[in-house]
Amino acid sequence: MMEAVSSVARGVWRDGILKHGARSVPEEVAVAFSYNGSAHAVMMATPQDLADFAAGFSLTEGVIGAVSEIESLDIVETAPGIDLRIWLAEPQRAILQERRRFLAGPTGCGLCGIESLEQAMRPQPPVLDDTVFSPADIMAALTALTARQLLHKRTSAVHAAAFWTQAEGLVALREDVGRHNALDKLTGALAGLGRTGRGGLGVLTSRLSVEMVQKAAVAQIPVLVAVSAPTALALRTAQEAGITIVAVARQDGFEVFTHPQRIIEEGLDAHVAR
Amino acid sequence: MMEAVSSVARGVWRDGILKHGARSVPEEVAVAFSYNGSAHAVMMATPQDLADFAAGFSLTEGVIGAVSEIESLDIVETAPGIDLRIWLAEPQRAILQERRRFLAGPTGCGLCGIESLEQAMRPQPPVLDDTVFSPADIMAALTALTARQLLHKRTSAVHAAAFWTQAEGLVALREDVGRHNALDKLTGALAGLGRTGRGGLGVLTSRLSVEMVQKAAVAQIPVLVAVSAPTALALRTAQEAGITIVAVARQDGFEVFTHPQRIIEEGLDAHVAR
Repeated sequence: MMEAVSSVARGVWRDGILKHGARSVPEEVAVAFSYNGSAHAVMMATPQDLADFAAGFSLTEGVIGAVSEIESLDIVETAPGIDLRIWLAEPQRAILQERRRFLAGPTGCGLCGIESLEQAMRPQPPVLDDTVFSPADIMAALTALTARQLLHKRTSAVHAAAFWTQAEGLVALREDVGRHNALDKLTGALAGLGRTGRGGLGVLTSRLSVEMVQKAAVAQIPVLVAVSAPTALALRTAQEAGITIVAVARQDGFEVFTHPQRIIEEGLDAHVAR
Repeated sequence: MMEAVSSVARGVWRDGILKHGARSVPEEVAVAFSYNGSAHAVMMATPQDLADFAAGFSLTEGVIGAVSEIESLDIVETAPGIDLRIWLAEPQRAILQERRRFLAGPTGCGLCGIESLEQAMRPQPPVLDDTVFSPADIMAALTALTARQLLHKRTSAVHAAAFWTQAEGLVALREDVGRHNALDKLTGALAGLGRTGRGGLGVLTSRLSVEMVQKAAVAQIPVLVAVSAPTALALRTAQEAGITIVAVARQDGFEVFTHPQRIIEEGLDAHVAR
């Protein structure tokens, strides 16, 4: 198995002085997805938690509706990259071929498999989930995330996506050089636990673009908490998808952009009623 | 023309107190690329400098070898997004169709138009450029970049790519919600000025992944300076492509990872000789 971190030599210029030493940097590898022998997509990713990646990407791209539809997965390391060979049962193969007919060519960042603008902006299934969270919950989830970013501690250069609930704390956390991949891996990890994002917080170290909201909607995560800021389109999409967006989440507080009814101050009646 | 920034209402929780107000967030829109009427890719992007984006993406993807090959560009705003309709002369259309035969389906983030792992890892033309820079040059370029990030100043949520030379200072700077797009727009802006990245520094606010190095190689930028850290694959690719990687570039210094011969301390003989 490929390592997720490499040590490289480099020079450090600081205050006019050049010193030499080593730095840990994250590995990045081309990961190809194929379904029943047909190439589907190539992404640059961190080579760990690849079974989660295969399951989560297949779910968030709509190739499958449940991980049970994956009959088998072969993870094949080749010289130019890693080939994830996913084998689906016959009915799903038909759905995939239907989907591929829409594809006249390749697509861009975070929108793999979607050719047209209409497909890119396809509406998401609304997230119906009346779980509420306090500001203290959000701070606890952020603190738990930071403590468990093992790859980031070594490299300062990868993103994390985590899932947190009031009853369990941090349920799962996945890291990747790509923020979309980290969220796909988290979705796959949750599916592997037999669950979705219902009833918990999705916590992201990254900015919130529209694809992150689309993926969260597929994973049925009711509240996304992001360390950085959202885009306007991410907010409009979240509004329609019924997802609460908490962003600019830092040690001293956070901002709530959409569906604020899920964020309830401690001691209020609504909190007691949950 | 779509605005690049929107103002949204949101609540701010800080120190146990909820206040309401507005925040500026970056717009993000689905941008479709078509060549001679055939859909090619869809990316989420900031709706500004779209002519630069059309030119730069076409160059860095290898669809064209020079902007003169673009006969015309129609920028069409539709309800779901912006359609960049690019019209190429006949010979290039043939090349595009050749390229499309390799495409069995869509591809992933930053690797639009590349299906197989081999294509994803295709070698880049080496950058042959013996311009040298001092640590003070790198600091000056960073300072110039920061001063001109107009969209980022309003939103704190977009990336920038800039080109800087010793003789001219900051030549061009482009911003986008996507770091790949910012670099593509910069490449297009330089092409519009009738030049490449020869003889200057490419300065990036983002991390350095392999696709950023691949795009810089096409743009013939000899030195990439990134605010954040590189991946291991980005470094291997830069080593082969003859590109100097300067990263973790901050107020107090920076780190040099590949081809350090282009970074020369002031007062040394090599500097005088340039």
